[in-house]
Amino acid sequence: MSGFVSFVSSGPGDPDLLTVKAVKRLEAADAVLFDDLSSGPILSHAREDADLVGVGKRAGRPSPKQDHVSQLLVDYAQSGAHVVRLKSGDSGVFGRLEEEMIALRTAGIKYEIIPGVTAASAAAAAAGIPLTRRLTARRLQFITGHDVTGGLPDHMNLAALADPEATTVVYMGKRTFAALLSLLLGAGLPQDTPALVALGVSTPAQELHRVTVATLPELLEAITSPAPVLILYGPLAEEDAPAPA
Amino acid sequence: MSGFVSFVSSGPGDPDLLTVKAVKRLEAADAVLFDDLSSGPILSHAREDADLVGVGKRAGRPSPKQDHVSQLLVDYAQSGAHVVRLKSGDSGVFGRLEEEMIALRTAGIKYEIIPGVTAASAAAAAAGIPLTRRLTARRLQFITGHDVTGGLPDHMNLAALADPEATTVVYMGKRTFAALLSLLLGAGLPQDTPALVALGVSTPAQELHRVTVATLPELLEAITSPAPVLILYGPLAEEDAPAPA
Repeated sequence: MSGFVSFVSSGPGDPDLLTVKAVKRLEAADAVLFDDLSSGPILSHAREDADLVGVGKRAGRPSPKQDHVSQLLVDYAQSGAHVVRLKSGDSGVFGRLEEEMIALRTAGIKYEIIPGVTAASAAAAAAGIPLTRRLTARRLQFITGHDVTGGLPDHMNLAALADPEATTVVYMGKRTFAALLSLLLGAGLPQDTPALVALGVSTPAQELHRVTVATLPELLEAITSPAPVLILYGPLAEEDAPAPA
Repeated sequence: MSGFVSFVSSGPGDPDLLTVKAVKRLEAADAVLFDDLSSGPILSHAREDADLVGVGKRAGRPSPKQDHVSQLLVDYAQSGAHVVRLKSGDSGVFGRLEEEMIALRTAGIKYEIIPGVTAASAAAAAAGIPLTRRLTARRLQFITGHDVTGGLPDHMNLAALADPEATTVVYMGKRTFAALLSLLLGAGLPQDTPALVALGVSTPAQELHRVTVATLPELLEAITSPAPVLILYGPLAEEDAPAPA
């Protein structure tokens, strides 16, 4: 009997930002392996008799090794289970999908990927602004603030990242943004480039701060919330949306 | 009596890739203004007595002027209606949100934005690959293949777009990719850079083609399907996912 793995993108945190397909997969799953960011109310869609297994990383605590997660996926699938591997945001965007997919392929286990709403889309929507703008922000780019060592990645394309005509979104950039900023300013990014810091997007912990890149490090320093931080900068639209009715 | 506008991202086409929140807004709407790409089965979530108004552009046919769409939104909202303005993909990504938001703000009408699954996420998921890769594709960027005149946009950042360490996604690039490619190759992008062409992602018309950038123009030339074309290039993962069970 052969099982099956669905990599399910859980979106930014609000269970209503799951896709219909993600809900269906959760409802059908025998086992759900989840990260910290895709836990909580999202898991309420799982069956009562499903195995719920937390495999997430949490800042400052040891986390299960990646190969342990891959092995768990393989073991569950080989027992015949339909496994949902829940990943926050869109699993294809900084979701570390590839190692787990390779482990499944090596073991001959079938899988599918269900796309989802990435945090950048949710942050811009919450702030009432578009990610792209017709005349001023025609390129949109996503980077991660750290590599596997926890430091700023090598070989950053500063010509791309200091471009004042792009909207740039930095995932997981809280600790390294000050170092990145000095590179960006050196490469010509104006000090007064608009920026948005979004914490815990679409969750009860959500906070949005409109600043400029120059004042961002100070703001980031003052954040004590453990909620994930997303940083956007570029020619962001100036006005926030009026509050919904 | 004052109405309200929900900008609702409808995702790439598959009605199961709507978010739960998008479905709820559609079910509650008095009027739904939709583009061509967010029509079809997605509209079945609307109430039977809701006004369904097509305002989309379709290649080769005249389309309603943008200010006409904005005026319709304002008129419906001022009549007290809860209006859903449906936009394909994620409305913040090349969705031309801003003009309509400004019209609403000017008229004092409240609105909200519901984020969604952008076509790039759905295309990568369908091909069984991630959009970012830990060591080789740590930057992800989205551009549009044409500006408002229909030609390639001015001031493209070729240092960003010819970077072999980024995954680049070109929305609406079918007609202009050949011209873009000669700029990219001139800026140093290797001829054998892997590429993926995705047509009608997540719809019954879906087609996926794995090629290289050098052979892309020929492939695009041969496409007769009217389905929207998305182009991805960069250090894409090589293997497609096994077919789902």
